[in-house]
Amino acid sequence: MRYFLGVDGGGTKTQAVLVTEDGELVSERTGGPTNILENGEETFRKNLEDILKPILMKAKGEVISCLGVPAVGEFRNSERIISRIVESTVGLKPTLVVNDVVVGWASGTLGRDGVHIVSGTGAIVYGRHGRKEIRVSGWGSIIGDEGSAYHIGVETLGVVSKQLDGRLERTMLCDFVFERFNFKDHYDFIQWIYDPHSDRRSKIASVAVLTYEMAKKGDKFALEILERASEELACAVITAVKKLELKNPLVSCGGSVLVKNEIVRKKFEEIVKESVNAKVVTARLKPVLGGVILAMKHVSGDIPEAIIGKLEEVNEMI
Amino acid sequence: MRYFLGVDGGGTKTQAVLVTEDGELVSERTGGPTNILENGEETFRKNLEDILKPILMKAKGEVISCLGVPAVGEFRNSERIISRIVESTVGLKPTLVVNDVVVGWASGTLGRDGVHIVSGTGAIVYGRHGRKEIRVSGWGSIIGDEGSAYHIGVETLGVVSKQLDGRLERTMLCDFVFERFNFKDHYDFIQWIYDPHSDRRSKIASVAVLTYEMAKKGDKFALEILERASEELACAVITAVKKLELKNPLVSCGGSVLVKNEIVRKKFEEIVKESVNAKVVTARLKPVLGGVILAMKHVSGDIPEAIIGKLEEVNEMI
Repeated sequence: MRYFLGVDGGGTKTQAVLVTEDGELVSERTGGPTNILENGEETFRKNLEDILKPILMKAKGEVISCLGVPAVGEFRNSERIISRIVESTVGLKPTLVVNDVVVGWASGTLGRDGVHIVSGTGAIVYGRHGRKEIRVSGWGSIIGDEGSAYHIGVETLGVVSKQLDGRLERTMLCDFVFERFNFKDHYDFIQWIYDPHSDRRSKIASVAVLTYEMAKKGDKFALEILERASEELACAVITAVKKLELKNPLVSCGGSVLVKNEIVRKKFEEIVKESVNAKVVTARLKPVLGGVILAMKHVSGDIPEAIIGKLEEVNEMI
Repeated sequence: MRYFLGVDGGGTKTQAVLVTEDGELVSERTGGPTNILENGEETFRKNLEDILKPILMKAKGEVISCLGVPAVGEFRNSERIISRIVESTVGLKPTLVVNDVVVGWASGTLGRDGVHIVSGTGAIVYGRHGRKEIRVSGWGSIIGDEGSAYHIGVETLGVVSKQLDGRLERTMLCDFVFERFNFKDHYDFIQWIYDPHSDRRSKIASVAVLTYEMAKKGDKFALEILERASEELACAVITAVKKLELKNPLVSCGGSVLVKNEIVRKKFEEIVKESVNAKVVTARLKPVLGGVILAMKHVSGDIPEAIIGKLEEVNEMI
C-alpha cells in the first residue's frame, strides 16, 4: 500500500496531511512556521520534526510526498538543500519540494492548467500550462508583494501620516486608525510601527482589515488604495496568463485579501475577466491537499474524480 | 568669554563645532552615528563622548550649545531624555536639543523665517515663521520619507522586479542594475536586497544614483520615479509654507537627492516656485553651523552679518 503526504508550510504555520491511495485520511497535524529564510534552519528542522515524525509513523508502506514550503525558488539550489535537510531530520527523502504557492495552485486548479493567486500577508502568482510553469510577483515586503495585505497596510499608514501632516485632506481614515489601535498622539503611532520587538510584517498587514472597513463606508483614500491593490493583483495574473498562452484560463484565488475583501475581489475579477476572459474561483481545497494532489499526479498522472471527491471529504475533516 | 557649540548628529556620522562669540573656530570633530532609536543608547553615549569630551576641554568659559540629533520629536519627552543622557555622559547640560533637521534649517535659512528640506537617505521638511514652527514628512523608511534616496531605491528595485516578471516592459534599467551590482540572476538580486546582515537602508538608498544615471539616458521608468519624487518633495514644502502662512518664502535644500540630482531638483523648484513663489537655495553652511547659529540666537537674538561672514570662513575649514 502506498501513502501520499502533502505539506503546506508558511511563515506563521505549517500543515501536513497523510492519505491512503484511495484518498482516505490517515493523519493530519498542524505546527509552527517553516520559512527557512525568515525563521532559520533550526526552527525549520524542529517544526518539521514535530509535525512529520508522528505522521510518518502511521504510514505502513511507501510514502510519496510533496512539500510546499516558502523560500523555494528564492535562493540557489533551494530544492536540493531543503530536500537534504528534511531527509536528515525525519528520514524522508521528499518526492517533490516546491514553493508553497505551488501546492496552493494545485489545491485551486486540482492540478490542471491554470493560474493561482494568493494575496495574504504577501502576494504571489503561480501558473502552469502543460509542462510550462511561471511565477509572478512575490518579491517580498520591501520591493514587491503589490496588492498584499502588507502592501495595503503600508499605503494606508502612509495616507494617515500625510493626513496628520496636512499633505492630504483629512478624512475619517486617520481617526479610525487612531481609535482602533488606541493611539493618543503621533508618538504612539510611530512607536507602534517601528517597534523592533514586534512582528512588524503581520502587524502592518492587519491594518488592511481597517482599510476594507473604511472603504465600505466610502472613504475615498481607502477606496483608492484597494483599487490599486486590485489592479496590481490583476496585472500579475494577466502577465502569467499571457506568458503561459492560456485561453479562457482558470484562475483560482487564495489568501485573506482575495477571499474576504469583497471590494478588492470584485474589481480584480472585473479586470481579469475583461482582459483575458478568465474563470475566477476560490480554491475549494486547503493548500495542504494540493500537496497530496501533486504527489498523486507524480505517480499516476490524472486523478480520478472519485479520489477528488474523497479529498473534498478530507478537506472538511482537517 | 562665552563659547558656542553646534552638533549635527545623524544615522551615519556626527559632527561638532566649537566657536568663540566672535565666530572664530576653536575646535571641530567628526565621529560615529548618534541616532538613539537606530543605534541604541550605548552607541549614542559612546560616540557623543568621543566627539564632545576633547572639544569641551578647549572651552575656557561658559558653553551655549545646540544639539541637533535624529529621533528628537519621535518619542515622548525626547528632548528631556536626550538632554539628561548628554549631561550624565559629558557633563554638559545642553542649552537646546532639537531634531537634526532643525540645525539643517538654521544652516540654510541662517535662522530666519523659511522652510528647509532634506532629502538624503530619508526625507523631512522643517520650517519656522516667527515663533511658529512646523515639521512635515520624515515618517521613516516603512511608511514615509517620500522622495528620499531610500524611497527612490525601493521604487527602482520594484520596477526591476516587475520587468523581470514581464509585468512591465523591459528597458535598459533592469540590465543596468544587474550589471552595476554584478547580479547573475534573480537569486543574487533577492539575496542582495534581503540579506539581514547588511545595512539595508543605506544599500537601497545607494540605488537612487543609478536611477539618476538611467533618467539622464532617457529611461522612461527612471524618469517617472524621479518625477514622482520631485512632486512628493514639493508637496511637503508647499504644505509647510501654507501652514506657516509664509509669503514669497525662502526654501533651502540639503541632502544628496536635492543637491546632486539635477532632474529632481529642477522639477522640484519648478513646482514650488509656481505654487508658492518660493526662493529656492542650497544651504551655504554645513548643518553643524546651524547649531552654532541657533545657540547664538538663543542668547542674542539676531546675529550680525560680520559673524555670519566668520561662520562662512569656518565652513571652509571644517
